[in-house]
Amino acid sequence: MTKPTIRDVARLANVSISTVSRVMNAPNTVIRSKQERVLNAIDELKYKPNALARGLIYKKTNTLGVVIPDIRNSYYADIIRGMEDASKKLGYNLIICNTDHDRNRLFSYLSNFDERQVDGILFTSEPITPDYHKELKRLRKPVVLVSTHSLDYELPSVRINDEEAAYDAAKHLIESGHRSIGWIGFDLSDSIAGLPRYQGYIRAHRDFGLSIRQENIHLVSLWSDDSLDAAHRLFLQNPDLTAVFTASDELAIGLLCYLNERGIPVPEQVSVIGFDNIRMSRFTIPKLTTVAQPMYEIGYRSVEKLHARIEGAEDPILREYLPHELVLRSSTRALVE
Amino acid sequence: MTKPTIRDVARLANVSISTVSRVMNAPNTVIRSKQERVLNAIDELKYKPNALARGLIYKKTNTLGVVIPDIRNSYYADIIRGMEDASKKLGYNLIICNTDHDRNRLFSYLSNFDERQVDGILFTSEPITPDYHKELKRLRKPVVLVSTHSLDYELPSVRINDEEAAYDAAKHLIESGHRSIGWIGFDLSDSIAGLPRYQGYIRAHRDFGLSIRQENIHLVSLWSDDSLDAAHRLFLQNPDLTAVFTASDELAIGLLCYLNERGIPVPEQVSVIGFDNIRMSRFTIPKLTTVAQPMYEIGYRSVEKLHARIEGAEDPILREYLPHELVLRSSTRALVE
Repeated sequence: MTKPTIRDVARLANVSISTVSRVMNAPNTVIRSKQERVLNAIDELKYKPNALARGLIYKKTNTLGVVIPDIRNSYYADIIRGMEDASKKLGYNLIICNTDHDRNRLFSYLSNFDERQVDGILFTSEPITPDYHKELKRLRKPVVLVSTHSLDYELPSVRINDEEAAYDAAKHLIESGHRSIGWIGFDLSDSIAGLPRYQGYIRAHRDFGLSIRQENIHLVSLWSDDSLDAAHRLFLQNPDLTAVFTASDELAIGLLCYLNERGIPVPEQVSVIGFDNIRMSRFTIPKLTTVAQPMYEIGYRSVEKLHARIEGAEDPILREYLPHELVLRSSTRALVE
Repeated sequence: MTKPTIRDVARLANVSISTVSRVMNAPNTVIRSKQERVLNAIDELKYKPNALARGLIYKKTNTLGVVIPDIRNSYYADIIRGMEDASKKLGYNLIICNTDHDRNRLFSYLSNFDERQVDGILFTSEPITPDYHKELKRLRKPVVLVSTHSLDYELPSVRINDEEAAYDAAKHLIESGHRSIGWIGFDLSDSIAGLPRYQGYIRAHRDFGLSIRQENIHLVSLWSDDSLDAAHRLFLQNPDLTAVFTASDELAIGLLCYLNERGIPVPEQVSVIGFDNIRMSRFTIPKLTTVAQPMYEIGYRSVEKLHARIEGAEDPILREYLPHELVLRSSTRALVE
């Protein structure tokens, strides 16, 4: 049996095809009795206009658009899993787009989301610049910021408190007796993974009365592959470090590789703490101590939050912070003073 | 200035809204002179029906749908990069959907692709079962299989030759003097990553007159997290192995972690070869010898191939195999006989 067409609906309702089309596109232009005949015929035939047509009619596509800046980064793996599970529960399909940190790609995907009438947008990781905000506003769609937030604009967000998370990790090292702690972080122009984590590292030093030495701090541009280089520069300038805190697990994995090549034992000579708790951090040698972000929960909660916005439900907290956790494994040790 | 609406078009063309709608949806039902007036009005007003409406009219959405079974697996990172770059070049947007190896999710996404009228589908990694084939056929859309193929159906595909790639790695170990080589692979019911790689391992043993010992072979279910368990079982049954070949780098990373915990030095006591050459394989301790798949090229070529199908261009090779390469790093060594 073939699928019923608009033609079959028109025949059964005894109206013209254009009337069926008008019922779907501009129902106010069709008199009530004809409307009912068409709707009954649609029911009886189980006629399914395709999603494009339905999008025109019902204005709901049960689809959420996700923009991700770098899908290669394993950080997003569990976020997407969380998003998927919540979407499944709430009846959405996710379409995921990778912007590669490219402004033009981002705008192209946002415009695509607009045209395809996604019900809402999950915007991950990148800082909200004025032009991004303008574009998001123009789309007039519910948006939730994921692993990013905005203090300048009234946009709902779900993330951890990066400054506090970094503070806790640095504090742990200091309380374990470390006094010379390296920092491999992201560029401070990055207001999400860069600046706040750096600030947490600095605040912990200040709170414990430790001086901050510029040669202990090395910044790499975001998502760069040069973790080996950064590690090399750091130890060249200060071979006496007893611990290094990196702003991501991927940076920490590069550092472990560098230290192993140089024959510097971890944690005997140098303790290493990462940030994120990606899947691979359980399999490094030695296993990585890290600040765990609840990635799955961030993804899950973002979809729930977006759903609330789409449905116009109550959602009293604009900027949500989920708890982080320090996961102690084998790459750190306490110094005997 | 507000965007022109269908109402403005109708007014300028001096026809009803439903006539404009019919010109877009069912032009054959509108007489030529009215059609022309509507099209002229659309031109003059620079009226842009949204993508959903345009999808209805022009039947081309410049969007490709990608289904991926497990986006957590870093194997897909570079495939997606290649797909993205080719899509950018050829003017497509990609929408990526993660099926989680779940048949229902897969069907839901395929149906979503159908409704949203994507121009083509990139189907990755999973074997083509008869019901998948039936569904793909029903959609009547160009499809390219990525890192999978089908010998039963006439579907275009891009992948490496997994059997030969595994053969080359096993041969390398044998030629390096190894005689007792473990295999941690995927379930043989998996006709992509499971069976052919296993067959390559077996064929290399046969070609060199080595007997195949069942206790050297351990299979895990696809995408499982139990690489540590598999490694443990393998060495419990045969502590005398001098080399292990694993069917993925993620399995190899778990194995390296296990061997390190047991104090078994790599490669001094045991050589390890992985499969895939994921980004992380350069940062393992020791750095991982592996069979490199050209992931980026597989992604890139898949989009080019799909584009050729969409455009009806010549594409003489149905099943394409891209070259693999053995990448020698520090996790393997030659045995002195």
